[in-house]
Amino acid sequence: MVIIMQTGAPEAEIEAVIRAVEEAGFRPWVNPGIERKVIALLGAVDAEKAELVDHFAALPGVERVTLISEPYKLASRRTHPDSTTIQVGEVTVGGSELAIIAGPCSIESRDQMFAAAHAVKEAGANLLRGGAYKPRTSPYSFQGLGVKGLELLAEAGRAVGLPTVTEVLHPGDLDVIVEHADVIQIGARNMQNFRLLQEVGKAGKPVILKRNPGCRVQELLTASEYVMLEGNANLILCERGITSFENATRYTLDLNAIPVIKRFSHLPVIVDPSHAAGDWHYVQSIALAAVAAGADGVMIEVHPNPAAALSDGPQSLTPERFKALMGALSQVAEAVGRRTAGSMAQE
Amino acid sequence: MVIIMQTGAPEAEIEAVIRAVEEAGFRPWVNPGIERKVIALLGAVDAEKAELVDHFAALPGVERVTLISEPYKLASRRTHPDSTTIQVGEVTVGGSELAIIAGPCSIESRDQMFAAAHAVKEAGANLLRGGAYKPRTSPYSFQGLGVKGLELLAEAGRAVGLPTVTEVLHPGDLDVIVEHADVIQIGARNMQNFRLLQEVGKAGKPVILKRNPGCRVQELLTASEYVMLEGNANLILCERGITSFENATRYTLDLNAIPVIKRFSHLPVIVDPSHAAGDWHYVQSIALAAVAAGADGVMIEVHPNPAAALSDGPQSLTPERFKALMGALSQVAEAVGRRTAGSMAQE
Amino acid sequence: MVIIMQTGAPEAEIEAVIRAVEEAGFRPWVNPGIERKVIALLGAVDAEKAELVDHFAALPGVERVTLISEPYKLASRRTHPDSTTIQVGEVTVGGSELAIIAGPCSIESRDQMFAAAHAVKEAGANLLRGGAYKPRTSPYSFQGLGVKGLELLAEAGRAVGLPTVTEVLHPGDLDVIVEHADVIQIGARNMQNFRLLQEVGKAGKPVILKRNPGCRVQELLTASEYVMLEGNANLILCERGITSFENATRYTLDLNAIPVIKRFSHLPVIVDPSHAAGDWHYVQSIALAAVAAGADGVMIEVHPNPAAALSDGPQSLTPERFKALMGALSQVAEAVGRRTAGSMAQE
Amino acid sequence: MVIIMQTGAPEAEIEAVIRAVEEAGFRPWVNPGIERKVIALLGAVDAEKAELVDHFAALPGVERVTLISEPYKLASRRTHPDSTTIQVGEVTVGGSELAIIAGPCSIESRDQMFAAAHAVKEAGANLLRGGAYKPRTSPYSFQGLGVKGLELLAEAGRAVGLPTVTEVLHPGDLDVIVEHADVIQIGARNMQNFRLLQEVGKAGKPVILKRNPGCRVQELLTASEYVMLEGNANLILCERGITSFENATRYTLDLNAIPVIKRFSHLPVIVDPSHAAGDWHYVQSIALAAVAAGADGVMIEVHPNPAAALSDGPQSLTPERFKALMGALSQVAEAVGRRTAGSMAQE
Repeated sequence: MVIIMQTGAPEAEIEAVIRAVEEAGFRPWVNPGIERKVIALLGAVDAEKAELVDHFAALPGVERVTLISEPYKLASRRTHPDSTTIQVGEVTVGGSELAIIAGPCSIESRDQMFAAAHAVKEAGANLLRGGAYKPRTSPYSFQGLGVKGLELLAEAGRAVGLPTVTEVLHPGDLDVIVEHADVIQIGARNMQNFRLLQEVGKAGKPVILKRNPGCRVQELLTASEYVMLEGNANLILCERGITSFENATRYTLDLNAIPVIKRFSHLPVIVDPSHAAGDWHYVQSIALAAVAAGADGVMIEVHPNPAAALSDGPQSLTPERFKALMGALSQVAEAVGRRTAGSMAQE
Repeated sequence: MVIIMQTGAPEAEIEAVIRAVEEAGFRPWVNPGIERKVIALLGAVDAEKAELVDHFAALPGVERVTLISEPYKLASRRTHPDSTTIQVGEVTVGGSELAIIAGPCSIESRDQMFAAAHAVKEAGANLLRGGAYKPRTSPYSFQGLGVKGLELLAEAGRAVGLPTVTEVLHPGDLDVIVEHADVIQIGARNMQNFRLLQEVGKAGKPVILKRNPGCRVQELLTASEYVMLEGNANLILCERGITSFENATRYTLDLNAIPVIKRFSHLPVIVDPSHAAGDWHYVQSIALAAVAAGADGVMIEVHPNPAAALSDGPQSLTPERFKALMGALSQVAEAVGRRTAGSMAQE
Repeated sequence: MVIIMQTGAPEAEIEAVIRAVEEAGFRPWVNPGIERKVIALLGAVDAEKAELVDHFAALPGVERVTLISEPYKLASRRTHPDSTTIQVGEVTVGGSELAIIAGPCSIESRDQMFAAAHAVKEAGANLLRGGAYKPRTSPYSFQGLGVKGLELLAEAGRAVGLPTVTEVLHPGDLDVIVEHADVIQIGARNMQNFRLLQEVGKAGKPVILKRNPGCRVQELLTASEYVMLEGNANLILCERGITSFENATRYTLDLNAIPVIKRFSHLPVIVDPSHAAGDWHYVQSIALAAVAAGADGVMIEVHPNPAAALSDGPQSLTPERFKALMGALSQVAEAVGRRTAGSMAQE
Repeated sequence: MVIIMQTGAPEAEIEAVIRAVEEAGFRPWVNPGIERKVIALLGAVDAEKAELVDHFAALPGVERVTLISEPYKLASRRTHPDSTTIQVGEVTVGGSELAIIAGPCSIESRDQMFAAAHAVKEAGANLLRGGAYKPRTSPYSFQGLGVKGLELLAEAGRAVGLPTVTEVLHPGDLDVIVEHADVIQIGARNMQNFRLLQEVGKAGKPVILKRNPGCRVQELLTASEYVMLEGNANLILCERGITSFENATRYTLDLNAIPVIKRFSHLPVIVDPSHAAGDWHYVQSIALAAVAAGADGVMIEVHPNPAAALSDGPQSLTPERFKALMGALSQVAEAVGRRTAGSMAQE
């Protein structure tokens, strides 16, 4: 059983609930989230808990009490039957318009960032991505431009009129990222870096949470709970390929995950075909498939000159290939009752 | 190096080539295929082989000599740049019309088979499937009606005017299957049952080869070589999900495999969303995605009453749901320049 | 519910049971096994079945009636609490002496086979392996010497006084294999080739069933049921590595499978470190680990000259390395209360 | 090419090397590590680099210049052929005595921690583990006692005379962990939390780095580079199971990884059978196998009352079972030329 307190419930009310839990014979556990306290009962069996729901729900400061059988609660469609939409600039992620997030893997220079920004805007993207802090498998690889990169991303976003998306690696970088970017991305390697999730949850900006390639959909949904418990419901999930024995591609896109997430959660879900394949040859096919399967958008790496990219060159599209992809994607979007910004512009 | 003899090359020519190989200092290996002999040189390094290509190519009865670096040769797009199309009744698999193979997992009764046949025909399928020999994980599960099932399938196919597809498990059943069905399916569990592949290759009917859930795309393409070496180029590959740690679905559809196969092979490829998901809730999303990604068709389990099915009930569509799927599929097909029989009928 | 008939129950008794099942309102399914018929009730819920156990158990010709919740029954430790031992020549597989099966992957020539046989015998192996029919991923690879190979294996076995193990690929080869070998191996690719399993089950020789690298332990145990239902309880299971994303080795040994199989089944289990690793560097470590974990034996590829092997050279041990392995293995065997033939010889 | 500066090389020397790299026509990348700067050349091909090794190696402050083909360098056995040993209290990890790290998953109370400490010490453990900060998949699960837990762990360690091991989740907790514990563990979920790795690398205590269940051995070795580049060579690797399709156990122990790591790296490697299996029934078998395969130790969860554990109860051993395990482990250790503290105590 989980007792969810009202946001900002005073300390005295929280302590009173904790005492009530102890008096009922259970051990309380209090979530370390700052904005909204959640008190879980440890050691109780389901039957015992059910009788106590009304008892605890009546206490001051308690928002609601729930018996959760799934390990995730706030992300579940059962507690929120309607699909969630998230406003980012002029885009309503999860609405009929697809979120098309495009740009380079790493921000490398002003020229590169601006060339990419203009190219993706022109082709119909409605969000601009670029990495300033890069989690690289090897410490000998390029690790990003840091604050300088954030500034270039923000500048390029303003220049072409697109909101920006960038990844956070470390809680210490959050303030400067919040200052410069519109959407904060938590990368696949940090999906279960729970402290980072809590910090990002408190930052008050829309969040993209990428699935770790070794984690199940249920673990993704449970991780999302760490963000949402901090009061941030503006969460977009992202499927980007899982590990498997197949080695013809870098990862194996788990396309099944899209209808699975749609069935069990109300959160929007997008797909990253670039990382799922690791090879630009396959990116367009996968992007079309993702939209046909019901994804709310795609995140695609585009580089003005992939051969010279400091990271992820083999999986990056040239501006020309991205433009071709967007043309095909608009057709598929329409076939499933969605649309792209590009198709709207043409109307 | 591989020396491919002409179909029906006389024994004397084959023996002359074998002697030539031995005289050149190598050990010959002769493929046990009956129709077309292939002689491989064992123990030679690539440099030695390259010099001998012309020498062997000039011998009587030799069709061609190739240095293969890929483990598959006849299935490779490098030896056959144009995509292959395969005629089955009025359907050209691999052409602009999608192959929509539908019907029950197992043939259970006349009523069930005919109800399914009428339903899938009406909704726009152009091939009828049904299993008479079922490879069941447990020997205590229903194992199919055998010849009786084949007869029902053939009768139902004639009644609705659709060619039929059924699975072979054992070489001893091949003759009766060839007599009753139009396309022979080799199931996932038999993908590397190489003797069966050779026997099926000699049977002279179009073949569907399903990917084993524990095998790589390259192993699928290499297995296809066993069929094609027997002189049968009418081979359709089928992606039906691979094993992974994700347990929200029965298997993980490897959608990446579609563009990968299209890139490296000229053979048509279809997708089986029913087995890939193991749950009817996800079948439509996956089917649309498969077509958007470039698949040449889908194979879908439809049962008049899934709750009473003797096998695969949870993943079978009702006729109503299959009809809805076909409506959506026609839209996506059109978006990627393909069409369904249903959409043609409507024209 | 499953009704297991006595071996050789007359047709009239079988038909009477089938009628009784139908009269009770259920659909009977009869296993195609020749020696021992098994009749399963389809369409019954567990509660209904439980009431009928005594009813059916009293019918003539019925050996026993069981309500199975696990998909395997004859292989389950619940129906056979004591561990099974299997006599092969002088070796009691599953007893305190370990089964050490060694020899070349493929039988290539008399010299190679005899050199390997003498080497493994001298080092302490108690079973001799060699492949005459090879299931090769590519049709262009060496496929074995066939009957000629079987003869060499049998001759070498007699020469050194060791029973022999060889693989069957095709039911049509069974007779000649039974004539020449002491133990019949069903390879990993054929683990779910159920018709082959049934044929081998009827052949009356001890069987080694290797786990398919894409199948779960439960599927291995369920497949073993196909062999055992034919009246053959002399079945040895073999773990030989599963597929995973790790590519430093050819497969990933599932060491956990050993205690799992020991817990749920009474059948002996051995490990094949050569295939699990695909690299001789790791074979000794894995073999020692297998025995420490409780395996009843190991199967190891040994070749007089691995560099010239026609198959599996990289994972084959030289005679010297195999001898070193056996020395180390004897120590570990003793530490866990087992012994090797070599250690006995030394006493 | 990588230029490794001397520890504490002055800023002026670092800048001079950076200028030299630029003058040679390449782009320098400087590792953000504080203690020891590493300068990588971006954009150079191998041939160009080879010519420049001596040029850069001669510059002031440069310790060495290496052309790395493997993505890891400091962890490679090629640069450090002898196996590394790490001193922790009286234990030499990587030496002939095995590291036996035991204790509860979570520190729950003084009674529980002290009972566990006495039990594991008595049975022959030589390191005491206990989690104060727990990375739980669900935010509704018990998350650890924090500083209070660290204090209990340290106190229990002193009471029984064992060095202590505990996990860090967040850089902000590092100072207090360093104050209380002797070995810092980086958990599987944080294996690629590179910033945390760098911070821990600077903390100056021995480190255990656990493999992420979705990562390859090569990624583990490359991640270890982030710690070692900060000047900390006291790094112990830990295999704890990877993800696979097998669901009979929680994870699949990758036993192959032990000889693979031993071959390619000089770092000690231990195994965590508790997490690899997720079920106490299998822990002893796996622990024995790990030591037989060459592991330098094991890490085992022991709880005075597993049924009441707040985390990982099903995989925790009772003190009695741990004692039995240690008895068996001593035998296997001796068989492979190792020993346990318990076996020494008995001498």
